[in-house]
Amino acid sequence: MVTHIGLVGLGKMGNNMRSRLRKGGIEVTGFDPRPEVSDVPTLADLAAALPAEKRVVWVMVPAGEATRSVLDQLGDILGEGDIVIEGGNSHYVEDQERAAELAAKGIGYLDVGVSGGVWGLENGYGLMVGGSAADVESVMPVFDALRPEGPREEGFVHAGGVGAGHYAKMVHNGIEYGLMQAYAEGYELLAAKSDLIDDVHGTVRAWSRGTVVRSWLLDLMVKALEEDPKLALLDDWVDDSGEGRWTVDEGIDLAVPLPVISAALFARFASRQEQSPAMKAVAALRQQFGGHAVKKAD
Amino acid sequence: MVTHIGLVGLGKMGNNMRSRLRKGGIEVTGFDPRPEVSDVPTLADLAAALPAEKRVVWVMVPAGEATRSVLDQLGDILGEGDIVIEGGNSHYVEDQERAAELAAKGIGYLDVGVSGGVWGLENGYGLMVGGSAADVESVMPVFDALRPEGPREEGFVHAGGVGAGHYAKMVHNGIEYGLMQAYAEGYELLAAKSDLIDDVHGTVRAWSRGTVVRSWLLDLMVKALEEDPKLALLDDWVDDSGEGRWTVDEGIDLAVPLPVISAALFARFASRQEQSPAMKAVAALRQQFGGHAVKKAD
Amino acid sequence: MVTHIGLVGLGKMGNNMRSRLRKGGIEVTGFDPRPEVSDVPTLADLAAALPAEKRVVWVMVPAGEATRSVLDQLGDILGEGDIVIEGGNSHYVEDQERAAELAAKGIGYLDVGVSGGVWGLENGYGLMVGGSAADVESVMPVFDALRPEGPREEGFVHAGGVGAGHYAKMVHNGIEYGLMQAYAEGYELLAAKSDLIDDVHGTVRAWSRGTVVRSWLLDLMVKALEEDPKLALLDDWVDDSGEGRWTVDEGIDLAVPLPVISAALFARFASRQEQSPAMKAVAALRQQFGGHAVKKAD
Amino acid sequence: MVTHIGLVGLGKMGNNMRSRLRKGGIEVTGFDPRPEVSDVPTLADLAAALPAEKRVVWVMVPAGEATRSVLDQLGDILGEGDIVIEGGNSHYVEDQERAAELAAKGIGYLDVGVSGGVWGLENGYGLMVGGSAADVESVMPVFDALRPEGPREEGFVHAGGVGAGHYAKMVHNGIEYGLMQAYAEGYELLAAKSDLIDDVHGTVRAWSRGTVVRSWLLDLMVKALEEDPKLALLDDWVDDSGEGRWTVDEGIDLAVPLPVISAALFARFASRQEQSPAMKAVAALRQQFGGHAVKKAD
Repeated sequence: MVTHIGLVGLGKMGNNMRSRLRKGGIEVTGFDPRPEVSDVPTLADLAAALPAEKRVVWVMVPAGEATRSVLDQLGDILGEGDIVIEGGNSHYVEDQERAAELAAKGIGYLDVGVSGGVWGLENGYGLMVGGSAADVESVMPVFDALRPEGPREEGFVHAGGVGAGHYAKMVHNGIEYGLMQAYAEGYELLAAKSDLIDDVHGTVRAWSRGTVVRSWLLDLMVKALEEDPKLALLDDWVDDSGEGRWTVDEGIDLAVPLPVISAALFARFASRQEQSPAMKAVAALRQQFGGHAVKKAD
Repeated sequence: MVTHIGLVGLGKMGNNMRSRLRKGGIEVTGFDPRPEVSDVPTLADLAAALPAEKRVVWVMVPAGEATRSVLDQLGDILGEGDIVIEGGNSHYVEDQERAAELAAKGIGYLDVGVSGGVWGLENGYGLMVGGSAADVESVMPVFDALRPEGPREEGFVHAGGVGAGHYAKMVHNGIEYGLMQAYAEGYELLAAKSDLIDDVHGTVRAWSRGTVVRSWLLDLMVKALEEDPKLALLDDWVDDSGEGRWTVDEGIDLAVPLPVISAALFARFASRQEQSPAMKAVAALRQQFGGHAVKKAD
Repeated sequence: MVTHIGLVGLGKMGNNMRSRLRKGGIEVTGFDPRPEVSDVPTLADLAAALPAEKRVVWVMVPAGEATRSVLDQLGDILGEGDIVIEGGNSHYVEDQERAAELAAKGIGYLDVGVSGGVWGLENGYGLMVGGSAADVESVMPVFDALRPEGPREEGFVHAGGVGAGHYAKMVHNGIEYGLMQAYAEGYELLAAKSDLIDDVHGTVRAWSRGTVVRSWLLDLMVKALEEDPKLALLDDWVDDSGEGRWTVDEGIDLAVPLPVISAALFARFASRQEQSPAMKAVAALRQQFGGHAVKKAD
Repeated sequence: MVTHIGLVGLGKMGNNMRSRLRKGGIEVTGFDPRPEVSDVPTLADLAAALPAEKRVVWVMVPAGEATRSVLDQLGDILGEGDIVIEGGNSHYVEDQERAAELAAKGIGYLDVGVSGGVWGLENGYGLMVGGSAADVESVMPVFDALRPEGPREEGFVHAGGVGAGHYAKMVHNGIEYGLMQAYAEGYELLAAKSDLIDDVHGTVRAWSRGTVVRSWLLDLMVKALEEDPKLALLDDWVDDSGEGRWTVDEGIDLAVPLPVISAALFARFASRQEQSPAMKAVAALRQQFGGHAVKKAD
């Protein structure tokens, strides 16, 4: 059983994970290009520091180019019987491509969706894993150290073959988009009715226990409103990461209707537009047919 | 058969309709509170000017209070056998209430949905009528003068009893919201691909003939882009009138799913918000769980 | 402080609430038309059983006609200084109308949104209350007995004047629609990828701890999938109650965009249609312009 | 100027196009694997039949494998200075890949989006073209024969470089999805109000002239309702082709919100599901928390 791993990428997530792993009794050798946080100077040094019989390296770097580059290097450094764990937010199809490349060299591949954000250090991380049963089994102590306390199956799943972990995480994030938008629409309805609702923060807080809508996200909304009851300090600009987009792409590929998740995604796109070309076009049409009033651009 | 009517309300629509009616051989006595456009000084004078055996008054004033007030006055001035035509954008349920009140005095009631905007003067107006067959029949020369040339049934319908005309017009406008938003989304996709599409205006114009999406609204979009190829002069602020809202309300009452029409309506609401409280809430949630970057309000 | 109340309506909700109130030290005299569950034979007997200085009657009957009828009767039976609590799912505007009628007789009115379903007996009920501060204060022991354990403000709010409780509950339910649909879409994406995801139930269960999407509704989904892993025993028919519809109506009135909540509502409408007239129309159009294949009705 | 072309693919579209081209004075040598419709026995014979100084071959076969296979063969048969026109529904990115391959052999490439369906033979086809100005210019007589009568720019556009034609056609089809769904929702609202609207077909027909919603698609809806006033002969099953999906994918890539077009696409997906897994999940959740009635699967 593996009790010492390498961890590549010591950013916000990786750094917290190293701490939790160590607290959980796992030896961690961390590598990061920034020497001030790295345990070893190079990736080769990291590999050399691991137990020779089965080297396991967890990769926790930004999805896309950065991940691909690290995996390419690990493909050269590691060998037969070793395991790479891709813990970032890779697309599940890329997992399958990478795993095939590494398998040609005898290197195992696990993809792990990691949920929990900055709270994972304290609460543990929800883990969704794809790969072979044997690889999963051998790394179980690592997963056990990372996941939340309580029954393993409530914070960990071996969801299927390579890609299944990131597929599950992608869906998790798609759901997350929908949940956040649902709460947000409800918040706006409360805030818009200020002639009746005296206490928006208190109303949301009262949903914390006993109600059907209680959740961790709701708790966070309560916290946000406690800090800034009218959200006056924030702009309405909302970024999106790849996973919400992939979720909708997947729905389109599988012919699964996703009205709510797509609406949540599109609301984010719209939030980032200074001016909506589409709504200019609607304004233009109304002006054309009805002589309706429009607002001139500044 | 009626060939002389009163027309109350000589705004943009009413004034044009008076012109078209007169050109079509209908005698029109128009009343408006603004003496400079009115044919008679008072509503009572208007009634007095009409043929006594069957006085027909077409009301063309803003929906809501203004319409109700004029109908109340006509209820006092007109009598047995006369007909009121409500040509504004009243809600069909109000038609039914108003018709019942007037019916108690023997006054007939027709509700007419009028489509065509500022182009109606030249092209004729699409007419959707609700009321009794006898009342509709007696006013047919008026409808024939207003409607577009060509077969009567392609620009006129007696859709059903009182309220059916405005119900049909409400649905017409709901469809209109959806159509405009569909074109607008397509326009934005073209404009967003400026590295490939050299000529957005030309592309939209090329859809004018032969294509599946050709329509009058498309012609108007071509015209708008001809005048302002990047819609640079317009703000993305889009108003909505009652009818889009009523359409969605009606879908909710009848349990008819309206994903497209409602999306078009909500896009207009969003277009008018300086800041979206909902998207602030999503930004706040992301900040809470992930420490994600947000934009601070100015 | 009130420690003895009347409770009208001993159905699934009312009966459980009576039990929880009694367990919490509140004396309850219950009335229901069904003698086998009722504590008293008539509403008048119920009123007579209450402490004369301030009679408080909690109404827990179906919204609409039934509620209105009970409130009318209580308006005759109760008097100056007494309080009616409307705990059903009334529309907040009706609350305001009812409260005004009862206020004319000196009877106070509190509207309470009650969340928690069949689980409330054990977990406590989330309570959202509208009405005067004095009335709320006097009934606080009752609310404290019903609400979940823990800090009062996490399961109870005095949200504002009359109507605020039901407004908050309406919004709560609107959010609930969105949340459920988000989870459901995610579930379908997992289930549709059966060539990759070996364990849908296990994947959803692994979201129970540590993840961003953890919630009580998620726990219920885990439970449902445990009982029926492919939901094979259920039809895809989903009812809706008034509150989801009212939420969207409210968004329309206030010009608040509700893309997610409305999509969730429309998905329910669609789920109950044997055949969608709209989709027949789309099929008809495709057949007309493209000669595309259609399915003939059986 | 080119006045004789080869045409590969003589299915429903290709066959009609051959007829229209010939009527317009263009010589056409057609090839199809089915000898009974083909003018020549092989693709090589087709190439041999064309004027040697500039052979132009229009490909009109199903998108994907079939198109790729024909283009590969033409890459072997044609040479320097010849032109391939891809008139099917290829994805614009594939155009760019194919064009690069053919360019290496000196073969020009034009991609043409063709709209008009079975009506194009009579009405002409709307054409959206991508490629080099010189190639477009040399084939103009062909485009002029295919496009609708009237000003060239109302049924033809050279939208940009390679891919622009199919990009424009993709957007055209995305708009088409939205338009159809808008009309369909309106139709359902009329049909659902049968206690008020006596004449659904007549109401839709009355929108044919003068109204804001008049269009060719509306004319087709009138025709469909004339043939089958309650659409009783059709199932509500609606297929989708690649282009609606690509449009939404493109919106996701470009961060362009597409609430209406995506809703129209998802409605089609849903129309083809016997049972919706998502709505089963919602039913399951309601049962869990509220003991709400559900329908058991058969």
